[in-house]
Amino acid sequence: MSRITKAIHAIGLMSGTSADGVDAALIKIKGKALDCKIKLIAFKKFPFSKGLQELIHKASTPEFGRVDLICRLNFLIGELFAEAALEIVKIAGYTMKTIDLIGSHGQTIYHAPEDRNGVGDKKWLPSTLQIGESSLIAERTGVTTIADFRSMDMASGGIGAPLTPFAHYILFHEKGKGKIVNNIGGISNVTFLSGGGDIHDVVAFDTGPGNMLIDSLIHIITRGKRSYDNSGTMASMGNVSEKLLKRLMDNPFIKKNPPKSTGREEFGYHEALKIYRYAKRYGLSDRDIIATVTGFTARSIVENCRMFILCKKEPSEIILCGGGAKNTTLIDMIKKGVEPIQVKTSDYYGFPPEAIESIAFAILGNAAISGVPANLPQVTGAKKAVVLGKIIFSHRGTKSKRNTPFNQ
Amino acid sequence: MSRITKAIHAIGLMSGTSADGVDAALIKIKGKALDCKIKLIAFKKFPFSKGLQELIHKASTPEFGRVDLICRLNFLIGELFAEAALEIVKIAGYTMKTIDLIGSHGQTIYHAPEDRNGVGDKKWLPSTLQIGESSLIAERTGVTTIADFRSMDMASGGIGAPLTPFAHYILFHEKGKGKIVNNIGGISNVTFLSGGGDIHDVVAFDTGPGNMLIDSLIHIITRGKRSYDNSGTMASMGNVSEKLLKRLMDNPFIKKNPPKSTGREEFGYHEALKIYRYAKRYGLSDRDIIATVTGFTARSIVENCRMFILCKKEPSEIILCGGGAKNTTLIDMIKKGVEPIQVKTSDYYGFPPEAIESIAFAILGNAAISGVPANLPQVTGAKKAVVLGKIIFSHRGTKSKRNTPFNQ
Repeated sequence: MSRITKAIHAIGLMSGTSADGVDAALIKIKGKALDCKIKLIAFKKFPFSKGLQELIHKASTPEFGRVDLICRLNFLIGELFAEAALEIVKIAGYTMKTIDLIGSHGQTIYHAPEDRNGVGDKKWLPSTLQIGESSLIAERTGVTTIADFRSMDMASGGIGAPLTPFAHYILFHEKGKGKIVNNIGGISNVTFLSGGGDIHDVVAFDTGPGNMLIDSLIHIITRGKRSYDNSGTMASMGNVSEKLLKRLMDNPFIKKNPPKSTGREEFGYHEALKIYRYAKRYGLSDRDIIATVTGFTARSIVENCRMFILCKKEPSEIILCGGGAKNTTLIDMIKKGVEPIQVKTSDYYGFPPEAIESIAFAILGNAAISGVPANLPQVTGAKKAVVLGKIIFSHRGTKSKRNTPFNQ
Repeated sequence: MSRITKAIHAIGLMSGTSADGVDAALIKIKGKALDCKIKLIAFKKFPFSKGLQELIHKASTPEFGRVDLICRLNFLIGELFAEAALEIVKIAGYTMKTIDLIGSHGQTIYHAPEDRNGVGDKKWLPSTLQIGESSLIAERTGVTTIADFRSMDMASGGIGAPLTPFAHYILFHEKGKGKIVNNIGGISNVTFLSGGGDIHDVVAFDTGPGNMLIDSLIHIITRGKRSYDNSGTMASMGNVSEKLLKRLMDNPFIKKNPPKSTGREEFGYHEALKIYRYAKRYGLSDRDIIATVTGFTARSIVENCRMFILCKKEPSEIILCGGGAKNTTLIDMIKKGVEPIQVKTSDYYGFPPEAIESIAFAILGNAAISGVPANLPQVTGAKKAVVLGKIIFSHRGTKSKRNTPFNQ
């Protein structure tokens, strides 16, 4: 009993596809890795400078993402992740000595989950690339650090995403109550948690764009002066063009069967430019364009829920999280689409919507260090459940020395 | 007593700057991580196809090393490293169940150890980039895998190289007998082991080119038909141009004070092309060119030994290892340069010269898993000795589950 109630403290670090900064969450975990209670102690976003954000986007683009830039950015971003960890501990009024582990997602700069083309006598494998050197995080903080979670799922035949359903399960599952968690980051993904309460029943997949297309089109329309539609104000002032919306819904990803994952490759700046050109051809105003891509984002989420979840299960609520949960126009559209199912944000459960992803990587770090598999094969398509992440042990004390397997 | 004599089996995997294939060594380690006996069970090089070698060189070049290529190569090379591990176990007549750990160096595609330029409000940090996804190695073999050894030394203020001196110490140090180990791979490095037998007295650094310039010039001269000077035959037929040699010795890296490390950035194909143009201007024949760069390689090794080791210490022998130990013309030049010090190859101690580097990464993997720091701060310039490498535990048995620090 005393072992189960011993709490640990973990930091989760994350930068999403928009590459706008490091989200850092400090949480308290009480209980076993798969059956624990989570309390959020502190959360903050540490924004990247505009220049750095542009460099990350450059590094993520095949035409410009050069090896020297990637090598250097990996270390620089690692340093910024470390600084975020040091800061969040200060903000919480803790010291690093009280922190047991850090789980870092890093920054994805490329994700090719379905690659199978040949190279000479060899075939490419599905692959993914996160940067943000974890050695720097471990060295600067002195805390055991786990990073690079996606690669082991892909090595096991999965598409490396989404990984947060494991954390959604831990945070929100409730016996007797089916729930959908919809995380609207750059990309949107949904996680269905059955009322049966079994992790093997979890269904999860990407639904398509989250904020990514809206953000890119705001950027295009305002010529870089603004980067997102604050609270969905601009969308609320325009009308959805059903003609353009129908065209957008024809994107094969939307109706594709899960498991599926997507990214900047499919719904990035290039796609936004294409949409902008269509919209101009259709004579849409700027407001109508933003209303329509917001409508597309909502409709693709709703349709995915309908096609792959609601047709067979009946959740009693949808929990919104991610930055998109602050776009009230988007939320209203989703609400209308799924009526009469209740829609609430994760605030209801004590977790700010924008903190969920970073909390998830603290939870995934805890799973790794506990030897608990954290990918869900039914979600990622992996052949088996595997322990995710590469571990760098803290050697500030004797704890890790005593416990490594081959210590002599 | 029983704990100390319990032997473990480890595989070391390595691909050097020439990117010609995976070296795989299977060794038996008896004793504590820092005070153990090593026995080589099996060694083999698994060559990369010419196409893959070219792709790796492409990925290593800023102009062509794009993010999509790097992402894909990381996974493909990880797979080939895994295949090499599976093969070497078969060759030895062992099974993976008898293997306790794998240490993988991976493939360096960029190394910027002295980078300090600014990027906006931030400064770049010294950085390095190895690929060869360790998740694939761990997944395919089911064995605990340690990789990415250089980054933690750099996070601690070091230049991330050379890392093999730790292994040279374990393999060759002998109370009462000072030794120099000279590893001639693409780049050449020397390790001085004092007769006092203390690891803190080890001196080690890169001396400049190993086989890299010779190989590149053979490639240029034969228009890609040959890639190295077999046994140094061509060099033996030419004459060293003292005029060109003097110019080459003016390279500031040669006389620079340790700690120092170098790579393809400094002695790669571009440098070889530059040398070729000078040589043609001086009217040198092809044979004379190869004799002269071979002479440069030998002279830079000898001068570095003189300036930074022989002036204060007196080793009784120089142990040559790496592919360069098969270039008899190069060896003869080194022998003449260091007379009367004895020069022998590592074969003398039961380790084929070409196996030393891969053996070293098995030894470094063992150090990591034992929580033993393996960088030498006096060698890399790191502020402190740190445990190197990121660990992926095998979960085929209960061993690692039982022993992880936070297992609940």
